Amino acid sequence: MTINLRDGERLDDLQIKGYRIIQHPGRFCFGMDAVLLSAFAKIKEGEYVLDLGTGTGILPILLEAKTKGRHFAGLEIQADSAGMAARSVSLNGLEQKISIVEGDIKEASSIFGADSFDVVTTNPPYMIGQHGLSNPESAKAVARHEVLCTLDDILRESARILRPRGRFYMVHRPFRLAEICSKMCAEGIEPKRMRLVYPYVDKEPNMVLIEGMRGAKSRMTVEPPLIVYEKNGDYTEELLKLYGM
Amino acid sequence: MTINLRDGERLDDLQIKGYRIIQHPGRFCFGMDAVLLSAFAKIKEGEYVLDLGTGTGILPILLEAKTKGRHFAGLEIQADSAGMAARSVSLNGLEQKISIVEGDIKEASSIFGADSFDVVTTNPPYMIGQHGLSNPESAKAVARHEVLCTLDDILRESARILRPRGRFYMVHRPFRLAEICSKMCAEGIEPKRMRLVYPYVDKEPNMVLIEGMRGAKSRMTVEPPLIVYEKNGDYTEELLKLYGM
Repeated sequence: MTINLRDGERLDDLQIKGYRIIQHPGRFCFGMDAVLLSAFAKIKEGEYVLDLGTGTGILPILLEAKTKGRHFAGLEIQADSAGMAARSVSLNGLEQKISIVEGDIKEASSIFGADSFDVVTTNPPYMIGQHGLSNPESAKAVARHEVLCTLDDILRESARILRPRGRFYMVHRPFRLAEICSKMCAEGIEPKRMRLVYPYVDKEPNMVLIEGMRGAKSRMTVEPPLIVYEKNGDYTEELLKLYGM
Repeated sequence: MTINLRDGERLDDLQIKGYRIIQHPGRFCFGMDAVLLSAFAKIKEGEYVLDLGTGTGILPILLEAKTKGRHFAGLEIQADSAGMAARSVSLNGLEQKISIVEGDIKEASSIFGADSFDVVTTNPPYMIGQHGLSNPESAKAVARHEVLCTLDDILRESARILRPRGRFYMVHRPFRLAEICSKMCAEGIEPKRMRLVYPYVDKEPNMVLIEGMRGAKSRMTVEPPLIVYEKNGDYTEELLKLYGM
């Protein structure tokens, strides 16, 4: 197969099933957030999964590799990123398992229809608004800041797209945790499971992984802390395991 | 001073300022929850503090010892507990600093008036309803289950009692975290700071400490994990420090 890389793009090995992904360092490269979310999300055999704001398609590709889900869709508004994602899907021969759709999260339920997925995943922009952005239309700004969609948009559309008792998996920043819980409850996506990611055992967490279920009762499990580094700066045993090392 | 102990009561040394507390093992004795909440709550010089559901008065007594708050009130519905609390206050010579009031949390804002406190603290019943209780009127049941008041009652009354930008400190169980965040936001007591208490570094947390502020903007700090035991079962250094050991 000819690998069709464009200016500035690079090809990275995902260390699973021989899969590779096209990325562009000047635009946005996936981080630990996506890898941890792919390990946190529980996809059952035969399920249909939608990733909102899929970027270069890292989540559908990792989830296809790790789970027995039937089909994975990725919605991405930025044409360049969606293009890279689609080319990565082809590169890995996954056209039958993964669809990349170019479109707007704010219209996701119109694009895909109500009650249409078992699972929604999302690694959304973390930062509120465009404050301090010198170039709010850049690919990095759109991936990190709520320029083109907000948490409210994501939750509203997810609540429509998920079938009853369908599951929602998100990675986000802990400073927005109260808002996340409050808005998930308001949209009827009840938080059921949560894990905080602490870089070190004595530091504040810098990520929160959260699972919600549409129409569930109120009661959640908070999991043991996920600690990334040992005191000496090595990865912890659990983190190496999550990375498949 | 004559110590007036009744049948089944005992006198415990609080290991701070020589203070002691009257407790009754057949009713309810304070736990680590109260001690950790007294360390988590930040009371500034001159502030007026109300503890909702004070039981034997452990929180007002510990907070009087640890902070420069001007005055501490404790509201307790159970006459026997309120009586023990009042006797402990006298025993420690704190009648000028601590008032124990017998009354119902559901009427707290009528008892104390609106906008009347800088800080509310509470170590409320954790369990929902009376499910599985053989003796729902027992002192232990009332302390542990939402028999006489619910989280909604506590948040509604706290929102009324607190002055604007007044602070709310609560210890609770993590399985109710999403509900807590959602209801605090709905009552206008914005969650601002949170700490999860993990018995061991690789176990699920069994307590959550949360600070809210009336009328604040949405943004919270999640603090480093508070871990209680080392792997060998000894208390961690931080826990010993919080206990003043």
